[in-house]
Amino acid sequence: MINVGIVGATGYTGAELIRLLVLHPEVNIQVITSRAEQGKQVSDIYPGLRGHLDLEFSSPDTEILYTCDVVFFATPNATAMHKVPGLLKKDIRVVDLSADFRIKDATVWSSWYGQEHSCPELLMQAVYGLPEIYRHEISNALLVANPGCYPTAVILGLLPILEAGIVDTKNIIVDAKSGVSGAGRKIRMSSQFCEVNESFKAYAASGHRHLPEINQILNFLAKDDVVLTFVPHLIPIIRGIHATIYVNLHETSHDLQDLYVSRYLDEVFVDVLPAGAHPDTYTVRGTNICRLALHQPQGGNILVVLSVIDNLIKGAAGQAVQNMNIMFGLDEKTGIVSVPLLG
Amino acid sequence: MINVGIVGATGYTGAELIRLLVLHPEVNIQVITSRAEQGKQVSDIYPGLRGHLDLEFSSPDTEILYTCDVVFFATPNATAMHKVPGLLKKDIRVVDLSADFRIKDATVWSSWYGQEHSCPELLMQAVYGLPEIYRHEISNALLVANPGCYPTAVILGLLPILEAGIVDTKNIIVDAKSGVSGAGRKIRMSSQFCEVNESFKAYAASGHRHLPEINQILNFLAKDDVVLTFVPHLIPIIRGIHATIYVNLHETSHDLQDLYVSRYLDEVFVDVLPAGAHPDTYTVRGTNICRLALHQPQGGNILVVLSVIDNLIKGAAGQAVQNMNIMFGLDEKTGIVSVPLLG
Amino acid sequence: MINVGIVGATGYTGAELIRLLVLHPEVNIQVITSRAEQGKQVSDIYPGLRGHLDLEFSSPDTEILYTCDVVFFATPNATAMHKVPGLLKKDIRVVDLSADFRIKDATVWSSWYGQEHSCPELLMQAVYGLPEIYRHEISNALLVANPGCYPTAVILGLLPILEAGIVDTKNIIVDAKSGVSGAGRKIRMSSQFCEVNESFKAYAASGHRHLPEINQILNFLAKDDVVLTFVPHLIPIIRGIHATIYVNLHETSHDLQDLYVSRYLDEVFVDVLPAGAHPDTYTVRGTNICRLALHQPQGGNILVVLSVIDNLIKGAAGQAVQNMNIMFGLDEKTGIVSVPLLG
Amino acid sequence: MINVGIVGATGYTGAELIRLLVLHPEVNIQVITSRAEQGKQVSDIYPGLRGHLDLEFSSPDTEILYTCDVVFFATPNATAMHKVPGLLKKDIRVVDLSADFRIKDATVWSSWYGQEHSCPELLMQAVYGLPEIYRHEISNALLVANPGCYPTAVILGLLPILEAGIVDTKNIIVDAKSGVSGAGRKIRMSSQFCEVNESFKAYAASGHRHLPEINQILNFLAKDDVVLTFVPHLIPIIRGIHATIYVNLHETSHDLQDLYVSRYLDEVFVDVLPAGAHPDTYTVRGTNICRLALHQPQGGNILVVLSVIDNLIKGAAGQAVQNMNIMFGLDEKTGIVSVPLLG
Repeated sequence: MINVGIVGATGYTGAELIRLLVLHPEVNIQVITSRAEQGKQVSDIYPGLRGHLDLEFSSPDTEILYTCDVVFFATPNATAMHKVPGLLKKDIRVVDLSADFRIKDATVWSSWYGQEHSCPELLMQAVYGLPEIYRHEISNALLVANPGCYPTAVILGLLPILEAGIVDTKNIIVDAKSGVSGAGRKIRMSSQFCEVNESFKAYAASGHRHLPEINQILNFLAKDDVVLTFVPHLIPIIRGIHATIYVNLHETSHDLQDLYVSRYLDEVFVDVLPAGAHPDTYTVRGTNICRLALHQPQGGNILVVLSVIDNLIKGAAGQAVQNMNIMFGLDEKTGIVSVPLLG
Repeated sequence: MINVGIVGATGYTGAELIRLLVLHPEVNIQVITSRAEQGKQVSDIYPGLRGHLDLEFSSPDTEILYTCDVVFFATPNATAMHKVPGLLKKDIRVVDLSADFRIKDATVWSSWYGQEHSCPELLMQAVYGLPEIYRHEISNALLVANPGCYPTAVILGLLPILEAGIVDTKNIIVDAKSGVSGAGRKIRMSSQFCEVNESFKAYAASGHRHLPEINQILNFLAKDDVVLTFVPHLIPIIRGIHATIYVNLHETSHDLQDLYVSRYLDEVFVDVLPAGAHPDTYTVRGTNICRLALHQPQGGNILVVLSVIDNLIKGAAGQAVQNMNIMFGLDEKTGIVSVPLLG
Repeated sequence: MINVGIVGATGYTGAELIRLLVLHPEVNIQVITSRAEQGKQVSDIYPGLRGHLDLEFSSPDTEILYTCDVVFFATPNATAMHKVPGLLKKDIRVVDLSADFRIKDATVWSSWYGQEHSCPELLMQAVYGLPEIYRHEISNALLVANPGCYPTAVILGLLPILEAGIVDTKNIIVDAKSGVSGAGRKIRMSSQFCEVNESFKAYAASGHRHLPEINQILNFLAKDDVVLTFVPHLIPIIRGIHATIYVNLHETSHDLQDLYVSRYLDEVFVDVLPAGAHPDTYTVRGTNICRLALHQPQGGNILVVLSVIDNLIKGAAGQAVQNMNIMFGLDEKTGIVSVPLLG
Repeated sequence: MINVGIVGATGYTGAELIRLLVLHPEVNIQVITSRAEQGKQVSDIYPGLRGHLDLEFSSPDTEILYTCDVVFFATPNATAMHKVPGLLKKDIRVVDLSADFRIKDATVWSSWYGQEHSCPELLMQAVYGLPEIYRHEISNALLVANPGCYPTAVILGLLPILEAGIVDTKNIIVDAKSGVSGAGRKIRMSSQFCEVNESFKAYAASGHRHLPEINQILNFLAKDDVVLTFVPHLIPIIRGIHATIYVNLHETSHDLQDLYVSRYLDEVFVDVLPAGAHPDTYTVRGTNICRLALHQPQGGNILVVLSVIDNLIKGAAGQAVQNMNIMFGLDEKTGIVSVPLLG
């Protein structure tokens, strides 16, 4: 059994992580920390866990973390970076679900997150936890930077064509839409039911924090400086991301359906739908799957990629478990196979 | 492995049954029938099943049903009764999720379902599939009548006090609320998104088909003719039933919390919340659990029981699998343990 | 033109009041106060008002309030009571949408609102602003206590039978359901989209602040001490209250449909639906109307009254404008006639 | 008073038209037709109209249509074209809310609507009812083709820059999102609550019927053949369209905010938000307003225009009333000024 610690489990991402790990056959949840809820039963905060978990929230300063095999951070940004070095020194593996170790360039990180990075020397060591690209590196990693939700949907949508080098990398447009849980379990007016329901809007059209993270990986894949326009929107649903991606093809003759199917043939968590399909976000809700579909409107040279994930699973906690499975040599699917709730 | 057949799988109940059985470790889904979708891949209709099931819908007339160990009927009412006798004759066990075998009195059944019953002789043989009352009978049954969704929530809410005989059985009020999937996957105007969303209403206030089913069991528990007022309402959510039950206590001094906790101590799928709690339907969504809470407003002699279930699981497909587990001597929880999606 | 002031306009009730008054043909909005938003354009906070209102929020301490003909308070409870006496002294009429002047007994008020009332001498002077009962008193009132949302739906549902004296007043059950805006525009976890959507629950089952307010009026109507069980629930919709009311009739022979239709014949904002109907909350959304329907399940002696309103309009701001119209001798319907958004 | 007839009023568009016209001070609704509901009170189908309208649905073949001053068609496509010539011959004005007269080229129309046009000779005579472009022509028109919902949002979003000639017309991307009412009040599985709620998807990515309509007007504005990629999506809300439009600027130095504000200065139903804003669809719900906002991500040469409307009002019935007001010389705003429901 893998002894697991979870730091900062009162957000949606942390709660999702508990939900997945509590039924994971190879995991023993040793400690869950929360400064705010310290001393309370976890199942008092999350009644859905009643009968599944008998554990109190610990202080984040607990020494028990140092007895774990792996520690997940589901903390707000700029929190994990203060604690991770101490754990790594004791050879405890870390999967960080926040943004602290995703960006390789500390200066870029600082400009988007508004402070100095406290351990820039770890940025190059951290492995970006997208198994579809970095599976091998993850299997050897001590520190995994779990990707953001938008980046996961966008990168998986663009990966095959960027690797193939068949698109104009200077004009990629991503119109992305996310459910409300993507904003986290912070109390704020803009996430109140009456402000969100029966409405739809764009936000951060002039620049979103996931932009540099996406750019970094796209540049790597394209071996070039990609020019990306990224506009996120808020959907009045709890879970789900839908990225609609527009790229200009160098030529119209490629068999793109075949390219995508081939590239993802061995990827159990990426599903390329038949040509002409449109993935609903509900078909991935509660699952670790990314579903993709391709369209070439009017047979022209614009490729439209539709990419959907559950932002809390493949976009966060599920991918974190997938990474843990890889790091510990388990079957990659262990504990994260599920069928979406139909209806 | 148990070889399973599913008849009529294009409704929400049938789809939910497939979802559960496809991951059930002791089940092999042998055949799924649908007259309308015959010949199509099941996963073409339910894309969430892609990668989990490689099977086409068969004609409902297929002989393969006769090679099954158990056949589930998820058909519209008055369908299963025509097919069940033939299966029983071959000693194939049947779990019927429709209303065909729930009512013991064929005359009552006819008056609510508008036609003659085609095999009234089977009504007394059928076991009502509520394990919390009839577990022993289910374990020996050839034919299980799986309870309706409202009846499950209501009966579990009233069971301990009716058994204890401490309430006025002549004035029980059940104000019940159901998500839209309770209406089934029939195409109709009243289930269209624009007719339902952002609205709430009562329906069938003058009499609902689940009334005689509930009455039959309550009478059995109370050993008396119970007088029940039952008003269902439609909630703009997909899944979930919330029954608010009002009963007059003979006296106010009973420790009702203790009564309920004791009665359900060994019931893994019934969870009595601490005194003063209010169960949200989302805490049972996607699970086979019924959560209950008790209130005595202003310390008076009215007991308010709050009872929530997922109508498609404990109220239909999950309970059907629970019944199958009991019928085949498996651990009752096999394949139906899950944690609700938090957030 | 009536010069109007609005104190505390950043809640949903206040916003709704502005929405109605800005198009009211006999009203000039002179001042809107908000401590938090002081100095900002009202339409910056509520973009829907762009083009309709060119006014900044004033400090609540502004002297401009004393130049108004009428001041509306849409403040949190226990706020208006500190300011109302000063306005009344200058003969400025007041409509208070909070709970400060609804309860006649200062001791009862204190026990539910957790503090001493600062001007108990005004409680008897205040007129309860339900025109269907107190129209005459409202027309002469200086201070109107605008009813709560639940009380409006419940009282209008019970009024005809309590006046007629034909029901058991010792066992009335009200199962009430409200949209989320009923909780006000306060930032809190329990109103966050992800905590509310796709879920349903009861709350305050052991006692809700609207109980004494409802009791006070029902006692008056019944000329007796009514015994009421009141359990509120939260619906995942923005607007709407649905009260399902259960009463025991002394006898079953009354023509209740006729009783209700006759009682409300001249009431333009109460609509009694035909026998057998079930009102949807969407049919009153955005309107000042209360729709009622009556059922006697199985022809027994239980009467079920279904009562729906828009909690922000007939349950708050619309009724406040109706009261203002009466106080100033205008046609009662002025500025509050609308057709609900179909679809 | 203008005597009005409405043909085909049982869809959402027709219902919305009735809702608006019933309170329009210059209109007398003379006849409403519906083959399906003939003989029933309109308010029996739409209970929200109770007290506002005492009229039965007539047969679509009624002669009363010929006594009207103007007839609105809210019929399915390919219906109005059979009836319009007869009305025009009697000098009765027509506003057609269907697609029958929007496309000038009968061949193009046929290829998208799957049949021959029955009166192609009227196509050139019909005026496209977008007042912001064709106000003068509308004022003299006998036949107005009311624009589609997507076209209205898209064209108003692109109008100023296309007129100004400052963008690359060969690569315009429109990522559009619509509420479910946009699919009409047809009963179908894909509009059922359980299929739509808590989900999001693209549809018709390979080609949508509104594409040729949009192209026709954009070509006119750009005086060029525009190349447009248009991908519609379905939002789980009832009303609202959000178009996110991406265009390449020839240069980055234009003051686009000023360009848009100036162009729409006199347009009462187009509201250009301050730079940096993001319009929510709820701010236009229930109104005839189109709100626009502009962004230039990272200061580059991509302009992002955000455009929101209520698809049933500015995208259908409200614009139809606006056109009627213009045709009859009324103040353009008559009967269609409203403030969105806040909260």
